[in-house]
Amino acid sequence: MPLTVLSIAFLAVYAIPILAPGLPSSVRQACEVANIVIWAVFGLEYVIRLGLSGNRPAFVRTHWFDLLVLVLPLLRPLRALRLITALKVLNRRTQALTRGRLAVYVAATTVLITVVGALAALDAERAAPDSSINTYPEALWWAIVTITTVGYGDYSPVTVEGRLVALTMMIGGIGLIGFVTGSLASWIVERIAADESADDNETTVTRSDLAGLRDEILQLRTELAALRSTSADAQAPPDRE
Amino acid sequence: MPLTVLSIAFLAVYAIPILAPGLPSSVRQACEVANIVIWAVFGLEYVIRLGLSGNRPAFVRTHWFDLLVLVLPLLRPLRALRLITALKVLNRRTQALTRGRLAVYVAATTVLITVVGALAALDAERAAPDSSINTYPEALWWAIVTITTVGYGDYSPVTVEGRLVALTMMIGGIGLIGFVTGSLASWIVERIAADESADDNETTVTRSDLAGLRDEILQLRTELAALRSTSADAQAPPDRE
Amino acid sequence: MPLTVLSIAFLAVYAIPILAPGLPSSVRQACEVANIVIWAVFGLEYVIRLGLSGNRPAFVRTHWFDLLVLVLPLLRPLRALRLITALKVLNRRTQALTRGRLAVYVAATTVLITVVGALAALDAERAAPDSSINTYPEALWWAIVTITTVGYGDYSPVTVEGRLVALTMMIGGIGLIGFVTGSLASWIVERIAADESADDNETTVTRSDLAGLRDEILQLRTELAALRSTSADAQAPPDRE
Amino acid sequence: MPLTVLSIAFLAVYAIPILAPGLPSSVRQACEVANIVIWAVFGLEYVIRLGLSGNRPAFVRTHWFDLLVLVLPLLRPLRALRLITALKVLNRRTQALTRGRLAVYVAATTVLITVVGALAALDAERAAPDSSINTYPEALWWAIVTITTVGYGDYSPVTVEGRLVALTMMIGGIGLIGFVTGSLASWIVERIAADESADDNETTVTRSDLAGLRDEILQLRTELAALRSTSADAQAPPDRE
Repeated sequence: MPLTVLSIAFLAVYAIPILAPGLPSSVRQACEVANIVIWAVFGLEYVIRLGLSGNRPAFVRTHWFDLLVLVLPLLRPLRALRLITALKVLNRRTQALTRGRLAVYVAATTVLITVVGALAALDAERAAPDSSINTYPEALWWAIVTITTVGYGDYSPVTVEGRLVALTMMIGGIGLIGFVTGSLASWIVERIAADESADDNETTVTRSDLAGLRDEILQLRTELAALRSTSADAQAPPDRE
Repeated sequence: MPLTVLSIAFLAVYAIPILAPGLPSSVRQACEVANIVIWAVFGLEYVIRLGLSGNRPAFVRTHWFDLLVLVLPLLRPLRALRLITALKVLNRRTQALTRGRLAVYVAATTVLITVVGALAALDAERAAPDSSINTYPEALWWAIVTITTVGYGDYSPVTVEGRLVALTMMIGGIGLIGFVTGSLASWIVERIAADESADDNETTVTRSDLAGLRDEILQLRTELAALRSTSADAQAPPDRE
Repeated sequence: MPLTVLSIAFLAVYAIPILAPGLPSSVRQACEVANIVIWAVFGLEYVIRLGLSGNRPAFVRTHWFDLLVLVLPLLRPLRALRLITALKVLNRRTQALTRGRLAVYVAATTVLITVVGALAALDAERAAPDSSINTYPEALWWAIVTITTVGYGDYSPVTVEGRLVALTMMIGGIGLIGFVTGSLASWIVERIAADESADDNETTVTRSDLAGLRDEILQLRTELAALRSTSADAQAPPDRE
Repeated sequence: MPLTVLSIAFLAVYAIPILAPGLPSSVRQACEVANIVIWAVFGLEYVIRLGLSGNRPAFVRTHWFDLLVLVLPLLRPLRALRLITALKVLNRRTQALTRGRLAVYVAATTVLITVVGALAALDAERAAPDSSINTYPEALWWAIVTITTVGYGDYSPVTVEGRLVALTMMIGGIGLIGFVTGSLASWIVERIAADESADDNETTVTRSDLAGLRDEILQLRTELAALRSTSADAQAPPDRE
């Protein structure tokens, strides 16, 4: 929970200098300092969790994404990737996964990647002389056109950092399309299967069918037990004779 | 039914001033008035349904799309979204969902989004000085290139409202691809499974298999009953002795 | 079979005047005449099949694609669509549908749509003054960029007929992506299910499991029959006594 | 294993003259010679394997991709396709296919196609006067934009060879999207099915259910055996009487 607050604070101090480039230099520096401090806190948190974990190599292996996000920010516009770890918290809670929850989670990730990616691209591109992405609305429009893989080409990044951001967004876009498609496919399969099951019901075996069978076997045993006792009675008289 | 007629009337008074910009100002104003009147009727219908519903917060929650469509038209080009609610009526009737009906429904929605989206984009873009979308054929071509996610970039919106329309169409396009893919995937899985079932039939359990088992258990009980009666006969003589 | 030959002849007389615009006018006219004659033969064939069919409205309904292809060629560049009916013949033969056969069929359709679509687009675009598609290699490159939905925008059609061809190809492209995805999805599901079945085997019920159960019940009956006969023997001596 | 080393050596002698066009002509010629020698080794290896195989036509049919890769390099920029055969080795080892291993394999293939495709496109395009792809970073950016099917159009190939490379990458891109989608679809289906099985558990038949049934039948047999022996005891005394 405190880490989520910290993530939002990180987004604020990251976004403010990008969105308001005319800020006095002291405010810009304060944001930069806050940015580095929050980064250090996340680094410390990672080191503490690493120290507390019993099996350290296993911890590094299963938390590789946390480490990547921690190291990547050396490239400044990629620092925004930290926000995605906040969404990972959501992921952990989805024990009973329904299609609706998955959709909300994917939609939230997509919006976050688009909004933050536009920030990062603007940060990287604004300084380039031949760049077409110079304002946040333009960056956001470019981000939407990219993540949906439409790619008009009216705006496109020209710097290495801007293109790394674009690569992240294109991968996100393919994942988004994949999720939407996969979700619809599973829904279609389910709906059509449900409609067909009205006819199919006669030929599938359920536990209640087996329960019926078991009941009959139990009756068989009861009858057998009755037979045994009468048989025993029948034997007893000859013994007494 | 009257609401469907009203939706078509809405499309007409929405489309006419866009498609025929040279109309006398009195006709344009009549269309604008009719547009607002129809909007008010839809608003009234929503309020009445809200009033009639027992659980009002639940009604707002389950009918969020109706409310969104009611509020969004404040942005004029987005008023066309109202038409999509007419398609929701279709959706309610699809109790027995087959792949064919789904395909017709998806195709109809796609055509409607494309035609109406082109109208809305033309309305938003025509006034902009540096816009490339100035006639309805151009808008329709742009809409097709966008919804299929091809995105040549020969035409692209430059206004905020035009880009919001584009965003709606890109989301529609991803949904369209997702549906086509999901539908084909479920069809492929089904066809291949059907062809394999000729060989597979030997290893699946059906109720008729269980019925065979139950028959044998019943015969067992019959024999046991017969055994019991002969055993009872066998006992009787010693009693009489 | 003669219709397939006729389809190939149709492609030839359709393609030759487009690919070799410098032909003497007499050759061009001969091709045009042959084109119309073949069109008439297909029309005649449709009318004969319609006449022979018992239920004519049903025939029109189930053969709507044949009728569409017959009527559409009035728009000259769309005449090429006839070739797709030749592929429908292939479709009829796929009784036992395997993933491999489907892939071959889809690949063949995609190549045909691309090659013929490039012809049709070149035919439509060459005459337009501001068109970028002026040679067959350019048209083919444009067709590839369109059907894969990449859409660079270095070449794009500007005429209504060229854009109708593009629409057909975009729909084909979405279908292509849908097929590839659906095919891979069904393959992945199958492969992973097959690998899991090694562990899963313990918990699924097959007919051989039921056969084992039935064997035990049969043994039970055999023993019961044996018991009955010994019980009958046991009764017999007292009777003789 | 030696073939994998040879493939990497092939990539090196292929890439060096492309990435460093300012090399002295002697080094360029050495690379070209090494390239041809490695090509000859691969050709020899194919011929030897063909000679050793019992059924030669079947060998050609099942190893068509190896032959294609061997013949295609006559078009120089396509020689890079040889590297994909190295990945086929990976494919052979995936006996127990899990979704994770498939993802690693697909990701590796995608990165290889992108990196090598950018090399091949740069090789083909650099010489063309009106080409926009003149440096390796530009070629790599173009390759990423193409394989994700975004297609901005800021860079696009103009030569026939460059466009053949683009075609290969677009097919790769569609395959990539298809794999991601199919993988997510199978994952979603599985996760949702797993969550539903908590409720569903009551109605599915497993082998443990059958085992319960079998236990009861075994008890039945045991009791029957006991009945038989007591019945035999009962008979014995009268015999002795």
